Amino acid sequence: MQADGPNQAEKSYIGVDLSGPTLRAALVSAAGEVARVLEAPLEREQLVEQIARVVADLRGGTSVEALGVGLPGLVDPRTGRVHFSTDLPLREEFYADLAGATGLPLLLENDANAAAYGEYVLGAGRASQSIFYVMLGYGIGGALIFDGQIWRGASGFAGEFGHITIDPDGIQCACGNVGCLETVASAPNIVRRTHERLFRDSTSSLSKLAVNRDFTVSDITREARNGDDFALLMIERTGRYIGTAIAAIINLLNVERIILGGIVMEAGELLLDPIIREARRRSFQPCFETTQIVAAQLGLDSVLIGAALLAAQKAGA
Amino acid sequence: MQADGPNQAEKSYIGVDLSGPTLRAALVSAAGEVARVLEAPLEREQLVEQIARVVADLRGGTSVEALGVGLPGLVDPRTGRVHFSTDLPLREEFYADLAGATGLPLLLENDANAAAYGEYVLGAGRASQSIFYVMLGYGIGGALIFDGQIWRGASGFAGEFGHITIDPDGIQCACGNVGCLETVASAPNIVRRTHERLFRDSTSSLSKLAVNRDFTVSDITREARNGDDFALLMIERTGRYIGTAIAAIINLLNVERIILGGIVMEAGELLLDPIIREARRRSFQPCFETTQIVAAQLGLDSVLIGAALLAAQKAGA
Repeated sequence: MQADGPNQAEKSYIGVDLSGPTLRAALVSAAGEVARVLEAPLEREQLVEQIARVVADLRGGTSVEALGVGLPGLVDPRTGRVHFSTDLPLREEFYADLAGATGLPLLLENDANAAAYGEYVLGAGRASQSIFYVMLGYGIGGALIFDGQIWRGASGFAGEFGHITIDPDGIQCACGNVGCLETVASAPNIVRRTHERLFRDSTSSLSKLAVNRDFTVSDITREARNGDDFALLMIERTGRYIGTAIAAIINLLNVERIILGGIVMEAGELLLDPIIREARRRSFQPCFETTQIVAAQLGLDSVLIGAALLAAQKAGA
Repeated sequence: MQADGPNQAEKSYIGVDLSGPTLRAALVSAAGEVARVLEAPLEREQLVEQIARVVADLRGGTSVEALGVGLPGLVDPRTGRVHFSTDLPLREEFYADLAGATGLPLLLENDANAAAYGEYVLGAGRASQSIFYVMLGYGIGGALIFDGQIWRGASGFAGEFGHITIDPDGIQCACGNVGCLETVASAPNIVRRTHERLFRDSTSSLSKLAVNRDFTVSDITREARNGDDFALLMIERTGRYIGTAIAAIINLLNVERIILGGIVMEAGELLLDPIIREARRRSFQPCFETTQIVAAQLGLDSVLIGAALLAAQKAGA
């Protein structure tokens, strides 16, 4: 027994989030409460060792039942192994190595799926049967949950929301297609579009910022909140692109809720409002009326919580 | 006992298809074999009476277990009643009236869902777990089947494939959006686009046809098969539009098979090839590689078979 308190008898799990440049890990209760969060810059070349160390720190003397890790890659739904990862150097042996190093029952999950599951159980998806979760970050991902089950598709690739074509004559995407949503609405591409337009408009407060250093999507969001017309325009245009793709989700899936998360959603209603307007304009009205479009509620913790709860589920909690 | 033969002990069902201008109905075995088809022009104002008459004709002395009807409208997944129908004057009482008039356990189903189920069990979807079915006809519809279950969405509207935006600056659709797939790739819209272009190109064999009478999408298909360059071009362009929307299905759902049916698919590979080319170009490669895009196999019988088998399932066969 480690501590007094009402939850001392409740089982504990560890959730780890490898989706960004910072590793985040936490003790999570069976009810999804986050007890303690550790953060550290991701050691990309020594991930297994780093995670094992963080897990040991979090455990202390606490009894931990299982470990769930959300990562930017594809996890084979049959074996639970990493199929491939575009952003991290994860080998096929990552699963076995990490399970061995921690001695814990292990679950690996795609980061968007983990975030979606967290929001479904404890966040903006509570009390709904079916959701589509959109991660608007450095890339753009998506995840579907139908009746409590993550839909992974025939080969685990379902939910590739970022590669929906928005502009058939648009610019080239890394995936090979042209005019994908990701080419205009991911965080780096919002910054790129803003840079390009600043050449033509030097009245924005972003122009002054751009003289001294590169700016980020968070800078654009802040200037928009401060009333900068140009920054507001960029956010509004971005919302229209995203709303066009959201309309396809509405028409095809008619899910109860579409939940928008990720760093780009820091803009809040400045972004959500144009998304909803464009989605209404571009979707079949009876579908639109029964689908809610809402902001995510768990912020950075969604991957942690979702990964921990999925690990708990797998461990038979 | 009506007839000798190996199936005499097998239970019989009746499937009815109200999706087109002609009512079609058939006796269908529990295994999905179509025994006898009746056809008649749809009596839109006396549908209950007409269906009851056709059902009586088909039954003869045969023992029939249940009746399934596929129709162009939305069926409430909870009650089984018609929610609304854009093309037929079906009242809320249609279900009760028809059940009363026939005395049979009754199932109503959206026509695209019924066709999808038929193809899933006995046609191009055999031996796959998940399919998306596309009906390319006078309108454009779609249906999803995951692990044997039709996905209807939060309010029964899932699968509205025809209202995916293909051209953000395109023409107005009846649904309110602009540039929906249906505005360019439904049978009447293929004819409209062909008419518009014929003003500029009078070398096609379709020009001669157009002098004497209106032509149909079947005429365009026939002339394309006969090698008319202009007709081939129209089919090829149509395939590119459809392929763009198919890419969204591939990216979002990663289903095992996408099955294309309906009268527009009379063009066969002349249409299927450009659809697949464009879908490959516009989808995320790992998703594309694990999704097959194929032509439907049951033709006009898919709605009949699917409606009958769903009725059998509901009746507990």
